[in-house]
Parts: sequence; C-alpha cells; structure tokens
Amino acid sequence: MVSNLKDKLKLYVILDRFLGKGVPLCEQARLAIMGGATAIQLRDKKMQGRDFYRAALAVGEICREQGVLFIVNDRLDVALAAEADGVHLGQEDLPLEAAKKIIPPGFIVGISVRTPAQAKAAQAGGADYLGVGDVFGTSSKPDAKTIGVVGLREVCQSTPLPCVAIGGINVGNVRIALQAGVVGVAVISAVVSQKDIVAAAKALRALIP
Amino acid sequence: MVSNLKDKLKLYVILDRFLGKGVPLCEQARLAIMGGATAIQLRDKKMQGRDFYRAALAVGEICREQGVLFIVNDRLDVALAAEADGVHLGQEDLPLEAAKKIIPPGFIVGISVRTPAQAKAAQAGGADYLGVGDVFGTSSKPDAKTIGVVGLREVCQSTPLPCVAIGGINVGNVRIALQAGVVGVAVISAVVSQKDIVAAAKALRALIP
Ligand code: NI
Repeated sequence: MVSNLKDKLKLYVILDRFLGKGVPLCEQARLAIMGGATAIQLRDKKMQGRDFYRAALAVGEICREQGVLFIVNDRLDVALAAEADGVHLGQEDLPLEAAKKIIPPGFIVGISVRTPAQAKAAQAGGADYLGVGDVFGTSSKPDAKTIGVVGLREVCQSTPLPCVAIGGINVGNVRIALQAGVVGVAVISAVVSQKDIVAAAKALRALIP
Repeated sequence: MVSNLKDKLKLYVILDRFLGKGVPLCEQARLAIMGGATAIQLRDKKMQGRDFYRAALAVGEICREQGVLFIVNDRLDVALAAEADGVHLGQEDLPLEAAKKIIPPGFIVGISVRTPAQAKAAQAGGADYLGVGDVFGTSSKPDAKTIGVVGLREVCQSTPLPCVAIGGINVGNVRIALQAGVVGVAVISAVVSQKDIVAAAKALRALIP
C-alpha cells in the first residue's frame, strides 16, 4: 500500500488533544501537514472508542487528501475500521503477534522500542518501522526514562527497519538524531503545542533531507 | 459459530477486576461457570491492551473448555485476536457499522441499549443480541439512570433480537426481568462480588428456565 515508507517517516507528527492547547485534532493535522508533516499519528488513550473512531475518520480523510501517512495509536480495531494506513503499538499495547493475526496485507505496523532486543523482536514479528525513544525526555511522558543519542544509535544499528526518533525532539537536536541513524523524527509538543504550528513543522522539516 | 445463542445468554456473568474483591479474573470465570454461567464477558476499560489481551486469552481458554460463550467488551481488536466468540459494544464504543467492517462472519456482536430506538438501530446494524438496561440501578455505574421494568419490557417488545437484562439484577428480581421478555440476565456484583461465587451463580441460574 505505502511504497515509500521511509520518505513518509521524515516528519511524523503525533496529534494530542491536551498538548494541542485547544486546537482541534483535525486542525492540528491540517496545519502540521501544511508545514510539511509526512506522517500523522492519532493518539488518545482516554477517548472512548466512538469518539476516537470519529476522530480517526476525520483526520484520516485529511491525510488521504494530502497524501500523508495516517497511523492510529494502540486501537487496532479503530485503525482498521477507519481505514488508516497503519497502527502504532507500544510495549504495553496489543502484542505484535496478536495484532498480526487480524491485520490485512499491506497494513503498516509501527512498534515503540527502547532497546536493540525490542527492535529485534519487533522485526522478527513483522513490524514495518520502529519508534525509538524516549531519546531526550518528553513532557508528555514524565515518568519515562531517556535512552539518549547513544541508546538511539544502538537501536538504529541493530535493525534494518526504518527508525523514527521520539522524545524531546526539537530544532536543536534533529541533526543529532539523524546522525544516529533514524530516517525521521516523531514530535508532539514541538509542533502541536506551538503557537504557529505550520512554522514549527516547517522549521523541523527543513532540517530533514 | 454459536447456534444456540439464546440458551447461551441465560446467565451472562461479567468479570470485574475491582468488584471481584481480589479474586483473579480467571478464577471468577471458573467459579461462575461452575455455578452455571452460560456466558462470560471480560470487561476492563482501564487495563492496557497487552494485559487485556492476555486476560482474554486466559479467560477465553476456560470458556472454550467449558462450552461457555466468551465475549470481550469494547476492544474488538482484542476480541478478534484472542478468538473470543464475540464482542460487546456500548453506545460510547466503536459504532456497530464500523465494527461490522472488520468482523468475520459468525462473530457475535452484542449492543448495550436503553431504548426501543437504540434496539432498532442495533438490529438494523446486524447486532446478534442486546444488553438492556440499566434496569434496576447498579453500583458499578453509579451515574447511569435506570429504565425500570417498564423500560425493559418496551425494549424487549420492540425487537426480535434476544435481550439480556442488566443493572442491579439479583435473585429477588430475576423473575420480573424474565417476565419482561428477556432470555437471560447479565450480572456483575451479584456473582463476582459474592463470597461464594459458585453458590451465587447457582442461585441465579436456578431461577432461569
Ligand atoms: Ni482503551
């Protein structure tokens, strides 16, 4: 379905109802894409299934129109029913082998990893890309421990899968992340919490060849 | 897949990690089935996907061994991956038409309804059974409004689908619920919060022909 996955992972913007400071999810998506986002992830562990599905339909339509990758976090059922391009699963979400049982061919699966061992397991299980972090520490997950650039490089070197750095990425450290071997960066607050979402996305996107 | 659905809905026990007072979910299932439960539902809106999936695998195995219907609440992805018999969806969960897009033939879908209008919509959408309530008021959903026996009868009379009464059902009101037209009753605390779960289930089951 998505042939140029690496290119689609360059600037991976995760929408957030709370960090978006009142900007509706659809508007976050639209502005981030205007600024150059190549992938959009919808994530909301608190939303009820019905609202999350409706949000997925709305954001998914925008992404499809703009040719941007659309990934739903955690809820594989919502991802499938809303016809997203893929699902992103954390280590506490549905296990990859369980998800694979109900995933059709061509549907993308991203897995959050912190270590080479988790990266190997994800690759063995058929993951399509990895979200690697928390790299620098992020306000959205205050209790997570960071892996730093050293940890990021270790994971990138351990796998042939395209890796996206996540966790405290901003214009000041994108280059360092890229040098560690990722194909792109995932951001939340560095884009959706900014007053000018378009400009924030543009500034990041400009740093990613 | 399940041919005798009506018979399987006679005593529908919903497991609950919190109301179970420390009894593990698997043990709640095992004891309820020993007491005559014909269906088991796993429900936990707070559990992470991975834990919920694992619980579904474990409880599902017990149900399969015992020939008891196994239904997973809300998380259709978990229901499918764990090979449950079906999924139960509330009015705030994934909409039925969305769920139907990814449900294989023979997979059971139950829908929570309060009104004849909701029952008609569920039937039109292809639901297999209805959970009707809150009938008498339940401690597990303190803010829900009750529909009473009158409301229960209205829903039962409005649909050919098998209906299960839910909400404050106990040995004192099972007969009244059955007279309103349901094929069975769904209970949580009336079984899983009791000191003797087997005896509690038996007492209820004895009242349902
Ligand atoms: Ni959830």
